[in-house]
Amino acid sequence: MIRHKRLADVARLAGVHASTASRALNPETRSMIRPGVVETVLAAAAKLGYRPHALAASLRTRRSSTVGVLIPDLTNPLFAAIVRGIEDALGAAGYTAILGNSDNEPARARTMLQRMRERRVDGMILATAQREDALIAECRADDVPLVLVNRTVDDHTVSAVVVDDAVGIALAVEHLVGLGHRAIAHLAGPQDLSTGRLRQRSFARAMAAAGLAVDPKLVLVCRAMTEEEGRRQFGALLERGRSATAVLAGNDLIAMGCYDALGARGLSCPAAMSIVGYNDIRFVDRLSPPLTTVRIPQYDMGAEAARLLLARMRDAAAPVQTITLRPELVVRGSTARPGRPKPPARPRKIPARDP
Amino acid sequence: MIRHKRLADVARLAGVHASTASRALNPETRSMIRPGVVETVLAAAAKLGYRPHALAASLRTRRSSTVGVLIPDLTNPLFAAIVRGIEDALGAAGYTAILGNSDNEPARARTMLQRMRERRVDGMILATAQREDALIAECRADDVPLVLVNRTVDDHTVSAVVVDDAVGIALAVEHLVGLGHRAIAHLAGPQDLSTGRLRQRSFARAMAAAGLAVDPKLVLVCRAMTEEEGRRQFGALLERGRSATAVLAGNDLIAMGCYDALGARGLSCPAAMSIVGYNDIRFVDRLSPPLTTVRIPQYDMGAEAARLLLARMRDAAAPVQTITLRPELVVRGSTARPGRPKPPARPRKIPARDP
Repeated sequence: MIRHKRLADVARLAGVHASTASRALNPETRSMIRPGVVETVLAAAAKLGYRPHALAASLRTRRSSTVGVLIPDLTNPLFAAIVRGIEDALGAAGYTAILGNSDNEPARARTMLQRMRERRVDGMILATAQREDALIAECRADDVPLVLVNRTVDDHTVSAVVVDDAVGIALAVEHLVGLGHRAIAHLAGPQDLSTGRLRQRSFARAMAAAGLAVDPKLVLVCRAMTEEEGRRQFGALLERGRSATAVLAGNDLIAMGCYDALGARGLSCPAAMSIVGYNDIRFVDRLSPPLTTVRIPQYDMGAEAARLLLARMRDAAAPVQTITLRPELVVRGSTARPGRPKPPARPRKIPARDP
Repeated sequence: MIRHKRLADVARLAGVHASTASRALNPETRSMIRPGVVETVLAAAAKLGYRPHALAASLRTRRSSTVGVLIPDLTNPLFAAIVRGIEDALGAAGYTAILGNSDNEPARARTMLQRMRERRVDGMILATAQREDALIAECRADDVPLVLVNRTVDDHTVSAVVVDDAVGIALAVEHLVGLGHRAIAHLAGPQDLSTGRLRQRSFARAMAAAGLAVDPKLVLVCRAMTEEEGRRQFGALLERGRSATAVLAGNDLIAMGCYDALGARGLSCPAAMSIVGYNDIRFVDRLSPPLTTVRIPQYDMGAEAARLLLARMRDAAAPVQTITLRPELVVRGSTARPGRPKPPARPRKIPARDP
């Protein structure tokens, strides 16, 4: 059992009334008390190891100074970097984050949000948004200040910090076209996510802008933004003998799956296939070959989301806004000129099952 | 301003006294109330969207159901994985983690711990321990239940979940010796960390057990467990023309720095140098070459630390204990037989400054 020193103990030692001690200890009311008394009270508090009770203070002010942060999975470096940005910006304002991992499971997300509400978070930042998201609709009905990060909702009814995926994808396509690629595949992310959907649409537009037709058979939709899905879908594409010379992956993890699918078939990147990722998560510069990818400002996205939320918590009437951050292309070793002008696409015969 | 439905509203709608509504809503006291009444109250609560006020409950019980978790840096995949283990295990017990990043800066760590105490965390898990740690001594004096994870303190006065580094390092040394290496370098972590210190001592013992002398000039101590330090120290070792054929790094990040230092000198791994890491953080299996490393059960360490803390929070008199988890060696492409029986160690002359 923890025994905390109480305000009354401090007041007794300082020889003042409890209300005087309280005012002297609170930076916001300290000026009401004579400096000499303030010093006496602070000395007494220090001697007793007294600390203001943040919980009690939060009940008085109806604020908990905590913010719920829901992400898919902390072990995905993208979200670890976003969360660091969130926590640093919240911390600077005296707020603390309560973190929840949804694992992209709605039931788990619901449990986490429920727990955050029970703890009376002052606001929430969600990195888990689906384009149509019943949980977010519930949060809005609750009137809890809310900000989305990385992914957003279709109706744009909630403030969000996102990346300009149209620019990011255009940079990637222009890079590949500039190298001489014409048959470019896209391994899209799930279409119920704004990122998956917008990147796919941006891919079609960027190809059109380059005067190239999108071969529908070269566009595959992954069920999740994972290495496994990239491996599975790109493996299927290679099996069918499609004639792509480059692939633009929906994110870096899908791109890693493409590396695996190529490697399992004895094909090399970028000689047999150029690969572009998205996000520039930690360590993709150390892949073999280092991954050409679209860098998004992960830490800054988190920090901006926190600042946007802090502003909304101060002023609930603040208009809904979307902050769009600009990505950049980072060219590394996974992209090169196509090996042959029109590769005849004859993947080696391989056994039905990979080893 | 958020307007929360109050208990009185629920009681009014259900047509019962507030104390009855309170007991019906609390799973621990629900059995005191007739089932029919419980149903009526729960229906009223659901209709009004009433949620129990966790903050008020925590003041009544003097428990906040939160745990402070202090780590060096969330963007280090080691700590992201440990934190996921902590959060999952805490969540299953109804607890929430409040996270702080110290960036290995004592002043920052102090601020974070202070903030956690002000929020009256019921316990703390620290992944930031130094072998002699003034902050931990302060926490102990505070009587807050405390568990260390990954790193521990020399006097073992605090419960901890750690890895058997003696076993991990022995596995790594035996592997290298088995391949034929004799001149093995060690890039130790900081010696004020239990991990850095124990791994270095274990290296000396494992070498002795293999009948090999440790060349003191082949043991370098990094100032931090980072890629930068690995690059700097291993670069210095290569510059001096030391005759190592293999290096055991204090952790995976230092090992990555060794890759860089080799690469900058046009030397290849494992042909010119075998490299072994420690931890097996995410994606080191995708380095070029894939890293041979000692795998520690990162997620389980976090989960065990949370369970140990939960037990201590239930019973403050529980004896201090250290739980030691067994690591395993994962052999990948960064280790091989030494290229020549006794490499004459003539690194290429390179300019004073790397490009």
